[in-house]
Amino acid sequence: MKRLYIVSSGAGGMDYITPQAQHAIEASEVVVSYTKYAKELAPLLEGKTLYTSGMTHEIERCTHAIACACEGKTTCIISNGDANVFGMATLVVELMDAKNLWEEIELISLPGITAFLATASKVGAPVSQDFAIISLSDRLTDIGLIDKRIRASLACDFVLGIYNPKSKKRTQPYANFLEALTEVDKRIAIVAQNVGRSEECISITTTHDLIAQGLRNDAVGMNTLLIIGNSTTRLTHNAHVLTPRGYLNKYDLSGEHKQKA
Amino acid sequence: MKRLYIVSSGAGGMDYITPQAQHAIEASEVVVSYTKYAKELAPLLEGKTLYTSGMTHEIERCTHAIACACEGKTTCIISNGDANVFGMATLVVELMDAKNLWEEIELISLPGITAFLATASKVGAPVSQDFAIISLSDRLTDIGLIDKRIRASLACDFVLGIYNPKSKKRTQPYANFLEALTEVDKRIAIVAQNVGRSEECISITTTHDLIAQGLRNDAVGMNTLLIIGNSTTRLTHNAHVLTPRGYLNKYDLSGEHKQKA
Repeated sequence: MKRLYIVSSGAGGMDYITPQAQHAIEASEVVVSYTKYAKELAPLLEGKTLYTSGMTHEIERCTHAIACACEGKTTCIISNGDANVFGMATLVVELMDAKNLWEEIELISLPGITAFLATASKVGAPVSQDFAIISLSDRLTDIGLIDKRIRASLACDFVLGIYNPKSKKRTQPYANFLEALTEVDKRIAIVAQNVGRSEECISITTTHDLIAQGLRNDAVGMNTLLIIGNSTTRLTHNAHVLTPRGYLNKYDLSGEHKQKA
Repeated sequence: MKRLYIVSSGAGGMDYITPQAQHAIEASEVVVSYTKYAKELAPLLEGKTLYTSGMTHEIERCTHAIACACEGKTTCIISNGDANVFGMATLVVELMDAKNLWEEIELISLPGITAFLATASKVGAPVSQDFAIISLSDRLTDIGLIDKRIRASLACDFVLGIYNPKSKKRTQPYANFLEALTEVDKRIAIVAQNVGRSEECISITTTHDLIAQGLRNDAVGMNTLLIIGNSTTRLTHNAHVLTPRGYLNKYDLSGEHKQKA
């Protein structure tokens, strides 16, 4: 049967890509990718027919990948991070379904390291409790629904991961987000640009600082991932970030149950 | 400087572990792990000093790993899935901070494929929109807060990932969860046991079926991950799951902007 892979390449470069994702690329004759990601994976792409295009050409890339698979060429389409987290999985499946190609092409999707988890690993242990992941892009999602989700997440004390916080042309959802942050107590905020890449830059700050900097904050753009801690998130003695899970409320350092007072 | 790694091994076995995680294990003299995960990673552990223990001995394992690193042995502690998602990261950082060992030990944490994303990749593209990840374990989290988070997530139409839904002794949070599901329209539900392992079993059903089966549902236990779709999640023609991102509302199949009516 003809085969199409959706390959999640992880948070950047060759460090994060799983063995099964590498094998899928090896097994493919054609590789379809956003131009930047193809450059990062160059060692894996030698001898492959490569089709790349820029941002906002997602439908074009998916359509091309499906067409190549239909021609009988084993094909993979690369999605950075994880294909299910604001990546290519949904569009490939939606197009495959619209064309009803399920009898013709076997589709295999492989997961990857999403930017939220890559960022979390770099700053200590900011996530231990329940969390919500929200994209501030209102290109395909109603801006009111985004705002509702932000406010609900803050109200029930989720750790928050924010994707696509703003771009030059798209600032209103981020303005709404900052407005929502003014209505809760100060929390720790992590601002991560280009995580997993050579130009990676991560800073640990507070929601009050984000609010003070407002829309002019150049560290917040299309390649930025934000993590907002919950009400228990704190700095460690070495200025890293910790959201305690609560073990040490219940157990002592040797793992024994604490006596109740 | 002495070094301790927190290694996320991914969703199971050797397929999901990243190159950087493999390198960290290679660089370690001592490997500390839950017994089951050590067996799965056996090809990587030859020649290492291995310390394993069973479930609920997390503090013991962390304490031992830190002690080995203090002795100058490069050590890694294995966390299945991703160490930040109900894994070992928070406890290691909390213990390191309580003992203020930051000058003595360099701690390096590496991310992995969490079960939610591994499961999502197996059933189509169930996640394309904002989502919330909630553990139903009330061992360390207030049961009322868990319930509040479930209800808030359903009210703002998050896709939901549920970890640790129930165990033999712990059923009340799952009962509360089913009660919350009765108050929203029927949604698609994915029930995944042991994802990424040889005994993997995934079924696609509905929230009404979960409610009907109630607490006696044997497919829901400690090794189960649930995904609840949002209000737009639907089945594809091949009975997989799709949460459309909305591209095809705005663009036609060739990627051109649709004309406004």
